[in-house]
Amino acid sequence: MIAKTPKAPYYAVIFTSLRTDGDDGYAAVSDKMEEIAKLQPGYLGIESARSGLGITVSYWDGLEAIRNWKMNVDHQLAQKYGREKWYSQFKIRIAKVERDYGFEG
Amino acid sequence: MIAKTPKAPYYAVIFTSLRTDGDDGYAAVSDKMEEIAKLQPGYLGIESARSGLGITVSYWDGLEAIRNWKMNVDHQLAQKYGREKWYSQFKIRIAKVERDYGFEG
Repeated sequence: MIAKTPKAPYYAVIFTSLRTDGDDGYAAVSDKMEEIAKLQPGYLGIESARSGLGITVSYWDGLEAIRNWKMNVDHQLAQKYGREKWYSQFKIRIAKVERDYGFEG
Repeated sequence: MIAKTPKAPYYAVIFTSLRTDGDDGYAAVSDKMEEIAKLQPGYLGIESARSGLGITVSYWDGLEAIRNWKMNVDHQLAQKYGREKWYSQFKIRIAKVERDYGFEG
């Protein structure tokens, strides 16, 4: 569940959100988007958690991959629903991962 | 709960973790660390969520602030317990936020 990303540098898209009440098709589309994202060129991994606040971090090999994913037609429709129905607030941050390290106990 | 960060660029520390079973002092120290982090020079904000996987993203004005927080004595002790007791696995990614945008419905 912790993404196995390659040696830095690579990119992270940090998507932080607050949901509206009710599902309203969200769960199914969210799963579908994750499925489709994994098929995109330059996709490296994804990590998600929600407890009130939702945080999804997706990892990409560069800015072009991020741009292409943003422009994907299915994803565009999901983005439209996101603003119209699913999120009361969100923030997206595009960040270059310069260094990483980890631990396995 | 979504961090109000300044205009990019700034830095994000993406901390992704899997917990061991049981609290073992984790919740109290975790709260305390968040309190102390907020007092550090260069601290900009924090976002946290856990549902199985835990993701905490803290925001900083530069690499020096991140380094200083890593070296903070209370935080050093928490890091030691983290490896010894609280986490079965974690990954830390230091990333430069180049661009961000948001939405409020």
